[in-house]
Amino acid sequence: MYTLYSMRRSGNCYKVRLALTQLDIPHELVEIDILQGETRTPEFLAMNPSGHVPLLKVAPSRYIAESSAILWYIAEHTPLTPDDRADRAETLQWMVFEQHSLEPNLGAAYFWLTLVRGGRELQSHALEDWMQEGYRALGVMERHLTKRRFFAANRYTIADIALYGYTHIAHTCDYDLTGFPAVRDWLERIAEQPNHITMDAQPVMAAAQ
Amino acid sequence: MYTLYSMRRSGNCYKVRLALTQLDIPHELVEIDILQGETRTPEFLAMNPSGHVPLLKVAPSRYIAESSAILWYIAEHTPLTPDDRADRAETLQWMVFEQHSLEPNLGAAYFWLTLVRGGRELQSHALEDWMQEGYRALGVMERHLTKRRFFAANRYTIADIALYGYTHIAHTCDYDLTGFPAVRDWLERIAEQPNHITMDAQPVMAAAQ
Repeated sequence: MYTLYSMRRSGNCYKVRLALTQLDIPHELVEIDILQGETRTPEFLAMNPSGHVPLLKVAPSRYIAESSAILWYIAEHTPLTPDDRADRAETLQWMVFEQHSLEPNLGAAYFWLTLVRGGRELQSHALEDWMQEGYRALGVMERHLTKRRFFAANRYTIADIALYGYTHIAHTCDYDLTGFPAVRDWLERIAEQPNHITMDAQPVMAAAQ
Repeated sequence: MYTLYSMRRSGNCYKVRLALTQLDIPHELVEIDILQGETRTPEFLAMNPSGHVPLLKVAPSRYIAESSAILWYIAEHTPLTPDDRADRAETLQWMVFEQHSLEPNLGAAYFWLTLVRGGRELQSHALEDWMQEGYRALGVMERHLTKRRFFAANRYTIADIALYGYTHIAHTCDYDLTGFPAVRDWLERIAEQPNHITMDAQPVMAAAQ
């Protein structure tokens, strides 16, 4: 059985928990508190030198890091990943976009404004950049979603899950989605998918053990 | 035959040209000059709303954007992508790392210091961030490469190509690799792979047409 090292309030971890749940893949959850330095211990760094969650243990001494790589690993050859080669590339294209254009901005704003709530490390110029670049990424998503219901292959895939992770909590870190109606409709559409769980959902499988 | 929209001096485009060459995949090259606004024309934006190169045309009206997604598309089921599922995930893990931790810093520094050479848009606080975060990413790579010859699956894969794109030009934008001997050895190892081409290589196939 897989072991997922995850922090409940992390958007990147939520993506993996959502996909594992929707694919009905048994897994053990280990809650890691980034804010308490639990990804910086020698034990954790031995598992993942980058010091990040989520981290999936797939075999003894075999770990996969990076939410997108984990999503790809668990969803290959499942309904959440397209069979067609170009559709698969389109799925990955949006997952990469999420990691270089959305997550660094929305994720950073969420971390500092919602989780840490400011602090001396938060500099105003950084926040301005995150807002500007985050809105730019949301604009790319809005233009895409005015013509399509989902991001890749015209159906719900791990690309939607990847992009949902931080977009659905953007309002908690001061992003105003009023001007992004197609994104808002898509957020509702994703929340209506079968076996959807919210980010603060209790870990059913772990609790049942 | 594929058409690759590419800019010669872009590290992201070079990755794709290198892989296409090493896989001996016929393709037509269309040179696009970002600095002349050629990715912002209505014609280009109709092909790729994000306005970025590289962009691969794989069929009429079917385009794949994002260097990592293009690499994945062209290298699936080739020697540049592992067969083992966990090895594939490890490959993707490093490609995602490249896009969120290395490219945004080394790529931005390269763009402003080497291509554009300064200008009023370049702010010192941004350069400091790129340097600090770029060195942090190089540190992660150095630690990995002290134990392994390549990034994934113990052999040369598209993960190496993805990471090579900007690492091999880091010195042109003021990164000092003296303290990263394993990275420097790896750079030499990549340049020694069969059918390697340099970033400024003339497009052999396009020129032969």
